[in-house]
Amino acid sequence: MNHPMAAAVGDKPFDLVLKNAQFVNVHTEEIYRADVGIAGGRIAHVTQPEEDGLSALDGGAVYDCANRFLLPGFIDTHVHIESSMMTPANFARTVIPHGTTTVLADPHEICNVLGVEGIDYCAEAARDILLRVFLAVPSCVPSLLGAESNKMVFGPAEIARMLAMPGVLALGEVMDYMGVINRDPRMIAILDEALQAGKMVQGHVIDVTSRQLSAYMAAGVESDHESRTLADAVMKLRAGMTLECRYGSTAQNVPVEAEALALLNYPVNATLCTDDREPDDLLRRGHIDEALRQAVRAGMSPVKAVQLATRNAALFLGQKDIGALRPGARADMVLVNDLHDFTVEAVFIGGRLCAENGRLTAPFPSPALPIESRNTMNIKGALSRDDFTIPAQGDSVRLNGVSLRNGDPFMTKLVQTTFAVRNGCAAVGDGADFVTLAVVERHNATGNVAVAPLRGTGLRRGAIAGTVAHDSHNLFVLGKNPDDMLAAALRLVESGGGFAAAENGRVVAEVPLPVCGLMSVHPVEALAAEMAALKRTVNDMGIVGGSPVHMLTWFCLPVLPEVRLTDKGLFDTVRQKPLPLYVPAE
Amino acid sequence: MNHPMAAAVGDKPFDLVLKNAQFVNVHTEEIYRADVGIAGGRIAHVTQPEEDGLSALDGGAVYDCANRFLLPGFIDTHVHIESSMMTPANFARTVIPHGTTTVLADPHEICNVLGVEGIDYCAEAARDILLRVFLAVPSCVPSLLGAESNKMVFGPAEIARMLAMPGVLALGEVMDYMGVINRDPRMIAILDEALQAGKMVQGHVIDVTSRQLSAYMAAGVESDHESRTLADAVMKLRAGMTLECRYGSTAQNVPVEAEALALLNYPVNATLCTDDREPDDLLRRGHIDEALRQAVRAGMSPVKAVQLATRNAALFLGQKDIGALRPGARADMVLVNDLHDFTVEAVFIGGRLCAENGRLTAPFPSPALPIESRNTMNIKGALSRDDFTIPAQGDSVRLNGVSLRNGDPFMTKLVQTTFAVRNGCAAVGDGADFVTLAVVERHNATGNVAVAPLRGTGLRRGAIAGTVAHDSHNLFVLGKNPDDMLAAALRLVESGGGFAAAENGRVVAEVPLPVCGLMSVHPVEALAAEMAALKRTVNDMGIVGGSPVHMLTWFCLPVLPEVRLTDKGLFDTVRQKPLPLYVPAE
Repeated sequence: MNHPMAAAVGDKPFDLVLKNAQFVNVHTEEIYRADVGIAGGRIAHVTQPEEDGLSALDGGAVYDCANRFLLPGFIDTHVHIESSMMTPANFARTVIPHGTTTVLADPHEICNVLGVEGIDYCAEAARDILLRVFLAVPSCVPSLLGAESNKMVFGPAEIARMLAMPGVLALGEVMDYMGVINRDPRMIAILDEALQAGKMVQGHVIDVTSRQLSAYMAAGVESDHESRTLADAVMKLRAGMTLECRYGSTAQNVPVEAEALALLNYPVNATLCTDDREPDDLLRRGHIDEALRQAVRAGMSPVKAVQLATRNAALFLGQKDIGALRPGARADMVLVNDLHDFTVEAVFIGGRLCAENGRLTAPFPSPALPIESRNTMNIKGALSRDDFTIPAQGDSVRLNGVSLRNGDPFMTKLVQTTFAVRNGCAAVGDGADFVTLAVVERHNATGNVAVAPLRGTGLRRGAIAGTVAHDSHNLFVLGKNPDDMLAAALRLVESGGGFAAAENGRVVAEVPLPVCGLMSVHPVEALAAEMAALKRTVNDMGIVGGSPVHMLTWFCLPVLPEVRLTDKGLFDTVRQKPLPLYVPAE
Repeated sequence: MNHPMAAAVGDKPFDLVLKNAQFVNVHTEEIYRADVGIAGGRIAHVTQPEEDGLSALDGGAVYDCANRFLLPGFIDTHVHIESSMMTPANFARTVIPHGTTTVLADPHEICNVLGVEGIDYCAEAARDILLRVFLAVPSCVPSLLGAESNKMVFGPAEIARMLAMPGVLALGEVMDYMGVINRDPRMIAILDEALQAGKMVQGHVIDVTSRQLSAYMAAGVESDHESRTLADAVMKLRAGMTLECRYGSTAQNVPVEAEALALLNYPVNATLCTDDREPDDLLRRGHIDEALRQAVRAGMSPVKAVQLATRNAALFLGQKDIGALRPGARADMVLVNDLHDFTVEAVFIGGRLCAENGRLTAPFPSPALPIESRNTMNIKGALSRDDFTIPAQGDSVRLNGVSLRNGDPFMTKLVQTTFAVRNGCAAVGDGADFVTLAVVERHNATGNVAVAPLRGTGLRRGAIAGTVAHDSHNLFVLGKNPDDMLAAALRLVESGGGFAAAENGRVVAEVPLPVCGLMSVHPVEALAAEMAALKRTVNDMGIVGGSPVHMLTWFCLPVLPEVRLTDKGLFDTVRQKPLPLYVPAE
């Protein structure tokens, strides 16, 4: 701290002086003209309103803010980097020009694929990428014990080991909230590890009563990002839970949460987060800057919105050197055109200009890591077309299956259907809007393959396979015929994962995600283009809507209502028990 | 957490239900009627506004709040318990009925007397006294290296060892702010220990420029409690410093700080503290409850004032289980009549009723500790009347001395005076409003005794001695004649310290402070009566005003302007160098 101290009192020059900023004071909510002196990567001095500007002689370099608004760097308090389908380095390249300088990342997805090695990879991959990445230890790996196969089960011992890693601030979103509320010993033991380690605990809780919420909070959970209604947000804020106001690609709760915050005098227990955001949204719409725009559009006072993304987030994360441009803090700063559009014009990290007008300007060394070239697909034996058929005898067979409700992948129900039998297999593809859905275990070569009918996707021909399949990220394939299913699946086995669409026995579109089957090695522009091409193909094949690929990734998650298919078979997620594929004769 | 969780969802009864509270929500700033369920010493549930009350059947016991206002327990973020002249146990007995449930204590005074053993004693003495006592490690022991003798010099090694003690949250107020701003290596090393240990650093900074303040903050200092002017408070809040708004016995900055907070939209970086508060003030006027009253009287919004004393304080201290009545938090609660008078009607700590209507109701075991019966007076040889005279030859002698400015003990100046010589000694007592001031080293039997003339106290006869003498707490004596000075001093050497007044060779009033010469073993009522009697005697002897004893304790502190007397002699505190007693011939 010697350098900023010396510069503050004029004993040494500043490294950089930002002149003529409209300084947004996140403590006092004032906006006033100020100069900011930087030294040693830290804020050395911010002129007070009645004070003369810092002389040009004081600093080695001068940056003229030209009366634009200077804010602390933005903080995302809850994000799964894997949802961007980019490596941490490429994610950083994408979000920094949008003003994000710190994230708390929960590597939940990659840990389902790699186990503890997943968080090791994230810690390693987050080094020297300008973006400050803190980590949360995934609390629910797998999402539901026994219902699906993933790489590794995290128990209290693994959790404790990961909590002790440098850069780990929190236990990640405790999604098994009913387990916690019911005082499930394994979940309570996991929470106890976090509390004993002095770590913050992030939550994820939906549709509970206020007394259930109290039990969840009494277990030590501090935050939530799932408020879909005004009443829910109000209840949580009143209880003292930190509301992580979310603006993701699909789940966008900021508008209703903004209403709650305005109603409740903008309590300090609120932050912004994105949770899951797709590459093209990050590229074209932004990250926390977009959440700020939406918050202000929803009626939130602009400076209050900035507080969510900066000061409140830093308080929540317990980090004193970010979230406010106070002397001694890291010089992570964002210059925006105004407090309505939040167009990011310049981003400084550690006092260094890193992005201007939406483009990264800092050199960005990011050596490839061994894991990024490892094929993690580990399937027992060779797949064949028989893996994607449902054997049956006689003329017809009655099967249990999954049916979408109104095309919403988050809500499904059980459907029982009678299919004709041809060549010893159920002719599922013949059914109205039916496809065959298959899930192939891909982590430990167990040989598990489950198949079931799926209704309501709209797919009319061909097949689509993917390895992004929450939360186990096994290989899923859905298709009208086993040959296309096999072609799509084999491509992913070979490439290490991603998405592939096949027709007439050959692959017609593809997004390789070779890093654990979750992430591309390409930067956002190339990845977004690949994704756009795939979406067009999938739309052509009959799955309509703007997120035709994203919707496919939810068919396997055994904690979403009501019926899902995992590698172990059909699963009734409400009663939490397996369902048979073949409907028993009455 | 099993018990509060089970009670929250109705699986087990609450231990206690508070019914019909006007619940002051420190998150949302709302006030609404609520019931509060307690289990296992924790908040298990607080009913939401639209929710039915908790059934009496749900709880083992019921306490009817009768529509009075329920607040979280009050937190004092900066207090020197020794200033109450009470042991931690008696301090706790006194402040709990006023609603204080947590303090951050800086045992600065006792550490000057006992060294590291002082903080050990405080940690031990703070166990099982209902009040939650966190500790700050004193950063400036002694106040000015080399200028005075105390028990032990704290360097980085001692600081590091104390920072690692359980219950230690902070490095205590860094009073040598000019040392820090000038990057004194010893102070920077001490601060670095705190930052490396991840501890918060409390400040104490007066009359600096905004750039000096930046240097001080860049060194890692987070807070301050010395804002005497609106401009100073505004400057510090804007810089992001935490303003610990102080309402002590003498220093009462809350009114001007309340004005600053209202002006700056009540930033969250503000708390309440008392710093130094005398026993009779604690007894008769209160503690943080009095600070709240004064804040509201100064125009602060009542709920905002409560936030300072609860939520903001907990955020500042980094303590998640206090400061708000949220599920899982400690059930430390205060019931007040209204949000103007803040008359404390009931206090609950850990869910247990501990005080009602100003009286402690909980049993209070507090075994005496060995240190409390140890006489810490360690003076070389026997004192004699010669120790309190200034030898001189000839008819007269010209001496340097200390002069009060307008009776303000915090501001002194140098005075040079010619005294008659009688019997080989300067006849200081003959001078107009002059007394002899002596300081006797009392920690390490060095034999240091310094004597000098002192003008402006008003003392007309007799002598007063004391062992509360900031910060070294050596034995000071001031008097009109050496016999009375000796009598007063000898009494304190014998009793282990405190204050004594003597006339005609015998002690006429006394407050024994046998615990390190700083603290009484008596409870507040007895101590306040003793202090009142002493004050009357001292007033009779000629020292006017309401704090005649308190003013005496500042004559030795070598960091107050401009001239002080330490055991090493006269000291020019502005130029930071010793002064000769005898004015050299020109």
